[in-house]
Amino acid sequence: MSESSAHRFDALWADLERVGRQGSSGGYRRFAWTSTDAALREWFTGEAQERGLDVTSDRAGNLWAWWGDPDADGPGLVVGSHLDSVPDGGAFDGPLGVASALAALDALRTRGWRPQRPLGVAVFSDEEGARFGVACAGSRIITGALGADRARALRDADGTTMAEAMSAAGHDPSEVGPDERALRRVATFVELHVEQGKGLVDAREGEGAPVGVASSIWPHGRWRLDLRGRADHAGTTRLADRDDPMLALAAVVGTARSAAERHAALATVGKLVVEPNGVNAIPSAVTAWLDARGPVEQDVRAVVAAVGVAAGSEPVEESWTAATDFDAALRDRLAALLGEDGAPAPVLATGAGHDAGILSAAGVPTAMVFVRNPTGVSHSPHEHADPDDCHRGVEALVRVLEELG
Amino acid sequence: MSESSAHRFDALWADLERVGRQGSSGGYRRFAWTSTDAALREWFTGEAQERGLDVTSDRAGNLWAWWGDPDADGPGLVVGSHLDSVPDGGAFDGPLGVASALAALDALRTRGWRPQRPLGVAVFSDEEGARFGVACAGSRIITGALGADRARALRDADGTTMAEAMSAAGHDPSEVGPDERALRRVATFVELHVEQGKGLVDAREGEGAPVGVASSIWPHGRWRLDLRGRADHAGTTRLADRDDPMLALAAVVGTARSAAERHAALATVGKLVVEPNGVNAIPSAVTAWLDARGPVEQDVRAVVAAVGVAAGSEPVEESWTAATDFDAALRDRLAALLGEDGAPAPVLATGAGHDAGILSAAGVPTAMVFVRNPTGVSHSPHEHADPDDCHRGVEALVRVLEELG
Repeated sequence: MSESSAHRFDALWADLERVGRQGSSGGYRRFAWTSTDAALREWFTGEAQERGLDVTSDRAGNLWAWWGDPDADGPGLVVGSHLDSVPDGGAFDGPLGVASALAALDALRTRGWRPQRPLGVAVFSDEEGARFGVACAGSRIITGALGADRARALRDADGTTMAEAMSAAGHDPSEVGPDERALRRVATFVELHVEQGKGLVDAREGEGAPVGVASSIWPHGRWRLDLRGRADHAGTTRLADRDDPMLALAAVVGTARSAAERHAALATVGKLVVEPNGVNAIPSAVTAWLDARGPVEQDVRAVVAAVGVAAGSEPVEESWTAATDFDAALRDRLAALLGEDGAPAPVLATGAGHDAGILSAAGVPTAMVFVRNPTGVSHSPHEHADPDDCHRGVEALVRVLEELG
Repeated sequence: MSESSAHRFDALWADLERVGRQGSSGGYRRFAWTSTDAALREWFTGEAQERGLDVTSDRAGNLWAWWGDPDADGPGLVVGSHLDSVPDGGAFDGPLGVASALAALDALRTRGWRPQRPLGVAVFSDEEGARFGVACAGSRIITGALGADRARALRDADGTTMAEAMSAAGHDPSEVGPDERALRRVATFVELHVEQGKGLVDAREGEGAPVGVASSIWPHGRWRLDLRGRADHAGTTRLADRDDPMLALAAVVGTARSAAERHAALATVGKLVVEPNGVNAIPSAVTAWLDARGPVEQDVRAVVAAVGVAAGSEPVEESWTAATDFDAALRDRLAALLGEDGAPAPVLATGAGHDAGILSAAGVPTAMVFVRNPTGVSHSPHEHADPDDCHRGVEALVRVLEELG
C-alpha cells in the first residue's frame, strides 16, 4: 500500500478514535440513537460528502454513501460496516470496516480508477444491540428479520423506546420497516471487520496471515432468565426460610459453563439485573442473560435447555440467528484474490454475528474480510489490530473493489 | 389502648405511608438526603412543632424533638427510630418506631401526664445506609464510630458524595462529626421496631406475643469482593481462553451459603455490579457485596474467610459491628413491665443492626422493643405488622414512658 493511502487511513482513524471514548476504561460507549451516535453519523456524512458521494438514509436509519447512481445504473458493490459499540467496547469492531472502505476508495480514486458499476459505502445502525438488546437491528429491520412494531417498542435500560430514541435523533420511526428499495441497490456486500479470535494468528501453521475471508457465522442467540425469589432481610431471615434467586444464578452460571464444555459450544452470562440490589436485602429477583453459540445448532439448543433446568424456568428467547453460510463462489474468489505466495487467504468461521450475515440470509451475495487480531480480544478496551495489518486490510479492500467494482 | 389513641396512631401512619412509595413494587425508596428524605423530615418537624416540641438537628442531621429542656433540666428519656428505607423496603422498618413514639406522647398528654425529666423523640439519619453504603451513618457519626472525613467522602451510585448530598439538602457538611452535646442530653434511649424475624410469632410455645424486648444484636458486617476478569467477546472467545469473573461469582454465592450453614451463621450476596454488563461481552469485573452475621463472631469471620478463598481475593471490610449486649438491668425491667399474665415479655437477640445498638456501644443505656411481624419478612414490600399489634406497640411505649420518663 502506498504511503499516502496509509496516511489517509491513519487520518480517518485518528478522527474517529476520539468519539465516544471513556476516560475511565479507555473503551467506547457508542450506543444507537445517542448524541455520540449522531456525532459518528455526522462524521461519516461529512467524509462522504467531501468525496462527492451521495449520502442517503434508509428506513432503519442505515447510511449509504453512493459513488454513481444505483437506481439509474443498476445495483452496485457495497463495502462498509458499523460505528456503534458494546459498552466499553474496542475501537476496531465496526469502525475499522468503515474507515477502511473510505481509505480504499481514496486509494483507487488517487490512481484515477473508475468502477464499472455504482459503488457504495454503508454504515449500519445499531449493530451491537447494546442499547435495545437486539443485535444487527438496522440490517434486520430493512430485511424484515426484525418486525417494525417490535423494533419500535424495544426499550433501553431507562425505559426509552427505540421509536422515541429515533425521534429524538431526527429519524421518523413511522418510516421503520422492510426497505426493498435500499436492498435492491446492493448487488454484492463485502464487510471488512477485525477478527474476534486468533484464527489469523494461528493460520498457516502458526506463521499467521494479515487478512482472511469468512466461511460462515455460527448459529447464535440470546435468552433471558427470570429468576424469582422473595426479598427479605439479610440479617434476620433464617437460611431455611429464604427464597434467594442468587442461588439460582450461581447454578445458571455453573451450568452454562459445564454444558458449553460438554457440547463444544460457547455460553456466557454477561449481563445481570438484581432487584432491589441492596447489600442487606435478599434479592426479590435476578434477571440474567445467556448468550449461546456454536458450530452446531443442536448443541447450542442443548446448552440452553440445560441452563433452563438449572434456572428452574424456561429461558425466554430474545433473538435467534440460524447458521449463515456466505456465498461460496464469492468466498473462494476473494480467498484466491487475497492469498499470498500462491496460497489462498485463510478461510474462517466465526461465532460473532454481523450485518453481513443478516444480508446474506436475506439473499444478498455477501462476503467478509477479516483483519488479524493479535490477541483475539474484542468487545473490550484491549481489542487491537496492528497499524500494518489495518493497512493490509485497506489494501485487501482495494483489490476487492478492483475485482468486483 | 384507648380508641382515640389508636386513631391518632392510624392518622400519623396514613400520612407517612404515602411518602416515597413506589407504584411498581409497592415498596419504599426513602434514601438519605434526597427529596423524599426531606419530605419525611418536614413531616416529622411539623408533627413535633404542632405538639409544642423543640426540634433540633445534630451534627449528623439526626432530628431531636424535645418536651422539656435537657440542657437546663438534665438528660432525658428518648424514644424514636428512623424514617429512611432500603431499596423497595417495607413501610414499618423505622417509621413504626417514630409514629409510635408520637402517638404514645399524645396518649400520655391527653391524660394530663407530665414526665419527671425531659422527654425526646429522635429520628436518626440514614439508618439503612442504602445510598452511601454505611448503615446507621447518623448515629455512627455523632458517636464517632464513623469518622467525619470518611463519612463526607462516601459516594452513592451516581458518584455524589455524602457531603454534596448533605449540602444540597441544606445540612452543612463541615458540621459533621462527633456530637457530645447531643449525646449528653440522652439519659436513656428506647427504640421500638418491627421485628425482622418470627421470634414473637413462635414465642410462648407458639402462642405468640405482640411485643418483646431485645437482648443483643449479633456481630455483623459488610465486605466487598472485587472479582476481576478480562472483557472479551462472548461469541468468539474459546472457553479455555476466558478469564470470566462470573464464574468466581458463582463460587462466591455457593460458598457463602454452604459456609453459613456449616458455621450456623447468615451470609447473603444481595448486591452486584457487573462491568460492562453487556449480553455479548464476557465481564471485565464483577463486584459483589457479602453481608455476614451470626451469634458468634468467630463463626462469622470463618464464613468471610471461606468466601475470600472462593473469590480468590481478600474481602474488603466495609463495615463491622461487634456484638452488642443491651443494658441488662433495663432489659429485665422492660421485659417485666411489658409481660402478660405474670410472664415477662419475650427477650430476643436479633441479626439486624440498629441505631440503638450504636448508642448502646457508645455507653448510652439503651433498650429495644419489638413488635410482632406475622411473616418475619422485612426489607421487602411484603413487610407487615397487624394494626392491632401496632397499637399494642404504642401501648407498650406508653408504659415505658410512664416507667422511665
